Amino acid sequence: MRFTLPLFSRRRSAPVLFVGAGPGDPGLLTLSALRALKSAQVVIHDRLVGDGVLALIPRRARRIAMGKAGFGPSTAQSEICARLVAEAQGGQRVVRLKGGDPMIFGRLDEEIDALDAAGLAWDIVPGITAAAAAGAALGQSLTKRGRNASLRILTGHDMAGFADHDWRALARPGQVAAIYMGKKAARFVQGRLLMHGADPATPVCVVENASRPDQRILASSLGLFPEALAGANLGGPAIVMLGLTARSAAAEITDIMQQKVS
Amino acid sequence: MRFTLPLFSRRRSAPVLFVGAGPGDPGLLTLSALRALKSAQVVIHDRLVGDGVLALIPRRARRIAMGKAGFGPSTAQSEICARLVAEAQGGQRVVRLKGGDPMIFGRLDEEIDALDAAGLAWDIVPGITAAAAAGAALGQSLTKRGRNASLRILTGHDMAGFADHDWRALARPGQVAAIYMGKKAARFVQGRLLMHGADPATPVCVVENASRPDQRILASSLGLFPEALAGANLGGPAIVMLGLTARSAAAEITDIMQQKVS
Ligand SMILES: C[S@@+](CC[C@H](N)C(=O)[O-])C[C@H]1O[C@@H](n2cnc3c(N)ncnc32)[C@H](O)[C@@H]1O
Ligand SMILES: C[S@@+](CC[C@H](N)C(=O)[O-])C[C@H]1O[C@@H](n2cnc3c(N)ncnc32)[C@H](O)[C@@H]1O
Repeated sequence: MRFTLPLFSRRRSAPVLFVGAGPGDPGLLTLSALRALKSAQVVIHDRLVGDGVLALIPRRARRIAMGKAGFGPSTAQSEICARLVAEAQGGQRVVRLKGGDPMIFGRLDEEIDALDAAGLAWDIVPGITAAAAAGAALGQSLTKRGRNASLRILTGHDMAGFADHDWRALARPGQVAAIYMGKKAARFVQGRLLMHGADPATPVCVVENASRPDQRILASSLGLFPEALAGANLGGPAIVMLGLTARSAAAEITDIMQQKVS
Repeated sequence: MRFTLPLFSRRRSAPVLFVGAGPGDPGLLTLSALRALKSAQVVIHDRLVGDGVLALIPRRARRIAMGKAGFGPSTAQSEICARLVAEAQGGQRVVRLKGGDPMIFGRLDEEIDALDAAGLAWDIVPGITAAAAAGAALGQSLTKRGRNASLRILTGHDMAGFADHDWRALARPGQVAAIYMGKKAARFVQGRLLMHGADPATPVCVVENASRPDQRILASSLGLFPEALAGANLGGPAIVMLGLTARSAAAEITDIMQQKVS
């Protein structure tokens, strides 16, 4: 299909654009993100960015892979910042492409600070974050009248610094939270929530590779999900959705591993 | 500019698609959302959907405005559900277009339940939610190492049902929350947070018409924002961002009303 891209109300003319690549499916890229990629001279991208999105970068643009890939090898943040500044100072139109939304666990501020210090202009093109792709995979709203008037976006990495009343709030019935980088923190999260009185039957779904062709959903419960995770051997990026079940009627669920709730 | 839309890994062939329209800027529509609009026979849309997005609906598609517009006139939810089912049963390709992300305060579950009850298939195309557009307007990350490892998405409408420990958690330094439909709840939110020990100097920004040409940012503090809001007379949709300041360096801030922090 061929479309004429609509005229945008906002022009993004800064030399550096922070662009959200979305969760993997190129269809979840925004029109502004596509336009930014098409006119970029240099694209500095995270290792989390989907192949389908990378394929949209024009051949004439330089492509630089930098950043973390799960717990694998990673580039130091200072090195990324220095590279970003150097490319922009060299007069290149730079796209800094980050998986999902650049403002969610993307270490965006450090890169912005470096550009500000160098007096370089920048702009942000938001992206679809992993939690939204996971919600769509489960076929569930992330908020719901009479269940949750609030959604929490958390990172498993920092949950050790979580205060007691945060855990208590999260342990209440009907809470919904999306835990990024939560695979390794599964036992810890489970332990704290149960300690604060959460019901072990609280639904927990883990969505791996949300929106990608190899998307998998592990439908489990608070009482069982750490074991289920250990058994499932998920290699791709995965997000832990606390308080949500998978609707069996969702059209696109590729592979659900269903478990009995204890 | 003309582009060929990439081949998507996920095909969305259900007769009813719930599609996120994003916060208003048509550039923040996803490629899948554009494709869904282009092949729709009926588009049932919220009154919150931006004009620039509505302009992308093909002429041959029927366009039906349904749903809430702020505190203005609204269609009963049951009526929307009935219409959705009727159109889909009539064999039409239906797009249910909702402002922002359909899974965030979009009453999606009620509509899905109605389709499920009628045995009709559906799928969800996530969208950019207002909080992400507001973060981009402020030029700020929504999470940040050493400040907040968690982001809360809340609705001002339901905050009366918020438990004590939720307020206590939210009143801690460094918390970041996006409060949807928060204009009317400003005094209530302020009162509860101060009661639970929050610092009146905590930054609060209100972003009106995020991503739209008439975007405005009201940069204030917890101690002052209800008065500032009353004085600013914001008519468009607005989101209250607790714990975030506006970076003056952001390229696209159209109109900042800055206040001294008490
Ligand atoms: C460093 S964070 C970056 C998050 C990203 N900025 C976003 O908004 O989605 C990486 C984590 O995001 C989650 N994630 C990213 N893409 C994902 C996907 N397609 N499916 C499931 N989880 C994903 C995983 O929890 C992963 O550990
Ligand atoms: C019923 S909720 C729908 C939210 C929508 N589903 C989303 O994800 O953004 C409506 C509220 O969203 C917020 N909102 C929606 N669009 C906005 C925009 N462009 N700028 C600021 N706030 C917006 C306002 O707080 C408004 O009262």
